[in-house]
This record gives sequence, structure tokens and C-alpha cells, in this order.
Amino acid sequence: MISQSVEYALRSIVTIAQHEGHPCTAQQISVITQVPAPYLSKLMQRLVRAGVAKSQRGLHGGFVLTKEPGELTIWEVVDAVEPFKRIHECPLGIKSHGALLCPLHQRLDNAMAMVEKQFRETTIEDVLAEPGAVTPLCQHQKTIQIQTNLAARKLAPTVTRKKVTEKKSKE
Amino acid sequence: MISQSVEYALRSIVTIAQHEGHPCTAQQISVITQVPAPYLSKLMQRLVRAGVAKSQRGLHGGFVLTKEPGELTIWEVVDAVEPFKRIHECPLGIKSHGALLCPLHQRLDNAMAMVEKQFRETTIEDVLAEPGAVTPLCQHQKTIQIQTNLAARKLAPTVTRKKVTEKKSKE
Repeated sequence: MISQSVEYALRSIVTIAQHEGHPCTAQQISVITQVPAPYLSKLMQRLVRAGVAKSQRGLHGGFVLTKEPGELTIWEVVDAVEPFKRIHECPLGIKSHGALLCPLHQRLDNAMAMVEKQFRETTIEDVLAEPGAVTPLCQHQKTIQIQTNLAARKLAPTVTRKKVTEKKSKE
Repeated sequence: MISQSVEYALRSIVTIAQHEGHPCTAQQISVITQVPAPYLSKLMQRLVRAGVAKSQRGLHGGFVLTKEPGELTIWEVVDAVEPFKRIHECPLGIKSHGALLCPLHQRLDNAMAMVEKQFRETTIEDVLAEPGAVTPLCQHQKTIQIQTNLAARKLAPTVTRKKVTEKKSKE
């Protein structure tokens, strides 16, 4: 129901968000997310094309988000990679149905509507800030922290971002 | 989110259920559901393998359901064709997560759980009997009625089934 591409894209976006505005190279994302580099490259192209992420060139270039994690929803990431095919009219083109869906297609569309609602209401920050839960992709938290500190020393961040979670800053 | 294969399989199962126990040939299903014959053939193989439908041989052979429509859920059809890949453990194999999912994977799994619950609670009879709604695949209701009457005259039904809906019998 949730494809591998969507799941991989979300891993990548969460990873970029965890870098808190410091550009994150494709190689870094690939290592952290365990998404094979060629696959990741295609996904990042789609995310950039959809305006969810952008690529910054140069020595310390890489990917950053185009929005704050608190403004970017799971839905926007899903929609960038594999848009839901909501059922707005009879897929069989049965004219007598008019604007009504039959109960079969209505129930299938209801299921999609339910998931869409959940995803539209959840931001990347919600995912990162959830209290009491394990941190996404946390095996690499230390790596991210080192990279972020290093980048901060070498280069002023291109997007200034407040700490995503209280929790993370304490870790 | 809901693949074409799943949607086609559900169209086919609803069509067979509408035949009320009279075997329904692949050709009939293909015409009614508008699913191309080779695609339908593969889907029916999967549905038979999963025990949702069975094939009856002979002159008036065809596909019938293995259960009453009131006992067959949307979930069983979905599961036969394209099982949900629920997330039971960290897809990245992060050991420190233990049995816990991180908030990203937990939210993705919650969405799947929500849809699974809806589909498990909905039978094919629910779909056919929904009051006030247009009948699924109803452009072909007349064809089905003629075929069913014809089959009833030629051959005693192999599975006796009560009328699925009051509504349908009045049409």
C-alpha cells in the first residue's frame, strides 16, 4: 500500500531535516537511509522537481529542504513521489452513475481519503519531535551531529533553522 | 495507494458475487469489468490460488466464490492479490530500536493498519447491499440478470445462494 519509493523518499527527507539546514550530499543521504545511490538519485530528482527539496551547488553543496520541517507534510513527500490516484468518477465510465461512485469505488476512495487526511496533518517536524519514541534513523544520529558541527564550523548554514526538537538538542 | 490489480480483482469478485452462485466465465467477467482478458486471467489465477474463488469445469463452468459474499471481506481479496507490507520492525535493521518503530515508520504502519481495519470490516455483501447507492458495475445488471435466468433454466446452480439484496430483486 505504501510503496518502497515513498518510504525511501520519506527516509531521505527526514535525514535532510535532521541536518537542520546544512546541505546534505546524496552520498550522506544514501549511507544514512540505506537507499542505493542510483535509486536515491532518481528519488531526489523527483523531490526537487516537486519543489520539496532543492540542490545547492559548490564545495559544501548538497540537498536542503525548501520549507521548514514544521511546514512540510508527509503528504507533500508522498505526492511528489507517487501521487494517490483518488477515485473521483466511475473508473468504468458507467454513465448512469453520474457524479456518484458505486459502493465499491466509494469505499476504496474513502480508504485513500482517510490516509490522505492523516498524511496532510503530519509534518516532518511532528515525526522528528514525537516524544518518548525512538528517533528516526537514530543509529546515525552521532554521524549527523558530527557532520553538522563540522559544517557549522566550515560554513555558515544557508538556511538558518531553529532546532527541530528539544529532545534532539539534549542528546 | 490502491493498485490497479487490486481494483480489478475487486471488480471481478463483485461481478462473480452478482451472479449469485452461477458460474461466471472469464469472458463474461472480462466484458463486465472491462479488465483485459490476459490480465484478468492472471488475477483469477491468484484469487483461485488464495482460495477466494474456484473454477468449475464443464459446459456451464466458470468461476464461483468459495464463500458467501457476506463472509468474504474486501481485505481477503486485497490480501490475495497484493498483500499489505505492514511494518513490524525497523526496515533499516537499526538494532537499538528493538521492537519499537521510529515515529516515521510507526505513522506509515498506522495508516496501513487503519485501511486494513476498514477492509477487514467490509464484506462483498456490504458493498452490494449498500442502500441508496448506485449498484456496482450496474450498466451490466441487465446482462447479468439475463445470463443468470438463462443459466438457471439450463442448469441447477451448484451453490444455492439467497438474493444478495432486496434492492436488486426489485430492479
